[in-house]
Amino acid sequence: MRLHALADLAALIQTSPGIDAASAAQAAVRQDSLTKPPGSLGRLEELAIFMAGWRATPRPVIKKAQALIFAGNHGVCAQGVNPYPQDVTQQMVLNFQRGGAAINQLCIASGADLRVVPIMLDTPTADFTTGPAMTSEEMLSAMNIGASAVDGNADVLILGEMGIGNSTVASALVAAFFGGAPPDWVGPGTGSDAAGIARKCAAVSKGLALHGGRPALETLSRFGGREQAAICGSILAARASRIPVILDGFICTAAASTLHVAHTGLLDHCLVGHVSAEPGHRRLLKELGKRPILELDMRLGEGSGAALALGILRAALHCHNGMATFAEAGIS
Amino acid sequence: MRLHALADLAALIQTSPGIDAASAAQAAVRQDSLTKPPGSLGRLEELAIFMAGWRATPRPVIKKAQALIFAGNHGVCAQGVNPYPQDVTQQMVLNFQRGGAAINQLCIASGADLRVVPIMLDTPTADFTTGPAMTSEEMLSAMNIGASAVDGNADVLILGEMGIGNSTVASALVAAFFGGAPPDWVGPGTGSDAAGIARKCAAVSKGLALHGGRPALETLSRFGGREQAAICGSILAARASRIPVILDGFICTAAASTLHVAHTGLLDHCLVGHVSAEPGHRRLLKELGKRPILELDMRLGEGSGAALALGILRAALHCHNGMATFAEAGIS
Repeated sequence: MRLHALADLAALIQTSPGIDAASAAQAAVRQDSLTKPPGSLGRLEELAIFMAGWRATPRPVIKKAQALIFAGNHGVCAQGVNPYPQDVTQQMVLNFQRGGAAINQLCIASGADLRVVPIMLDTPTADFTTGPAMTSEEMLSAMNIGASAVDGNADVLILGEMGIGNSTVASALVAAFFGGAPPDWVGPGTGSDAAGIARKCAAVSKGLALHGGRPALETLSRFGGREQAAICGSILAARASRIPVILDGFICTAAASTLHVAHTGLLDHCLVGHVSAEPGHRRLLKELGKRPILELDMRLGEGSGAALALGILRAALHCHNGMATFAEAGIS
Repeated sequence: MRLHALADLAALIQTSPGIDAASAAQAAVRQDSLTKPPGSLGRLEELAIFMAGWRATPRPVIKKAQALIFAGNHGVCAQGVNPYPQDVTQQMVLNFQRGGAAINQLCIASGADLRVVPIMLDTPTADFTTGPAMTSEEMLSAMNIGASAVDGNADVLILGEMGIGNSTVASALVAAFFGGAPPDWVGPGTGSDAAGIARKCAAVSKGLALHGGRPALETLSRFGGREQAAICGSILAARASRIPVILDGFICTAAASTLHVAHTGLLDHCLVGHVSAEPGHRRLLKELGKRPILELDMRLGEGSGAALALGILRAALHCHNGMATFAEAGIS
């Protein structure tokens, strides 16, 4: 999948496959035949049926789970929106590559193959408080990086991000998409104090004044950053291959919401792994009509909540495929 | 561990080990040194520190996870409190033993060794609406079965139950312990309709009139059943061996609440794996001051929510033990 222009994207959106209702219905029938009161596995049943629909098979399995973390740097850091230096993005990428981060351990625990994709860390996007963060070409290039990173043989895709300053970018994006004042969407991120949060709000306000009221993809290019665009590209590529996606926290979901605003239903193949302690996430999930799988007060990013939720999805499919039916078990 | 009389139980309670504060404190220091913003792993950090305290080591690991399901039958079924025949208890025990139930799959998914302990299924307890369900001796015997089933080499214990009619027993127990009217504690269980729920409430009312206002352990013997007593015995045995416990849903937690009422703090080594869709569970967790790990609308019992939560606990320890510190990773 390669996008050369925004027109390609519009065409892709129109041809994206939908859920396979027949497989989902067969999976639902199977769930009601398994040795348990109907519905008693709650969301595990929903997850199994969801996977059946998107994988287009009544007995879906997860042989291969891919986790992708995209990393980028952001010009808006010039506004003092983050207590950490931008070098930390590169340092954390090295930490991911050496296996020292939380996401490495969570991927080991849940059986996901992790790939880290740093995108032009030496060339931060432009400061969105003074002009567009990216050109359309830069955005498309980052989307293509995201799309081409997706392993078409994966049965599920976990998405995450790393980028000092990117919670400010996320807040600006969703404020532009869904309205509300900056304080509705701005939180502490990696650890901003009250003064830091005020600087984040000021940056978002300036950005909205410059870039507000534009179509979804143009909004994404104006606020940035490259990892957000790559997340969108990977979600589209996953959709084209019927690969369900697990989104992570606020920043990842905010990036993905670009697609929801561009075309309702474009995130229908996406689960949300957890609700972050970053306050804007809960509000954003309400806008998207998505219910998170986990709520564990996490606020790390890196795909950590999505990787953790993969374990729940695996368990749901273990039950779906491995349990006996009432007939098999000879139960009254 | 063997209890010969209620006096043994009182002595055991007095000598139960507490949390090792030094190990917990060392684990907390380690958490703050790992390559993430402090606190950003939320409850995963709390779980790692909890495990450190109860295992009395700053770097706890889970080599062996044991899952125990106790099964029993209940005389109160004579009151029409369950839409299924009591034979289903034995049929489900066979299903557990053959590997066909949800708990089998969930134990495979989370790496727990499952042991099923049916207790005198051919001899249901007495109907508590007409007299005590068990004698003190019967209760102690079932507690000892529970205690002796615990593998002292386990690093964590998952508890579950199976017993047609036992959601009525659970509702009666917690109504006796915590007050409130029967409808506050009675729910659909395996699938009662409104008329069935009314029969459950009527049975609980009769039971409270006969057996209310007694000490915790006497209350347990009067309402039953054997699987509830076994759960209490296993929790005490686990405590004596510093093995943290993951409780399951309403019925399992209701059984365990006997110990909380007998002696505050006796469930301090217990986590609650999930909050059940059975409505009394949320109210009960509030009484116990426990926050569940998962909320997935499950209402199956069998230890299913506890086994699923084991995956989260494992992930927490993966992060705790496997992540690099800031010093190791050379991060600013």
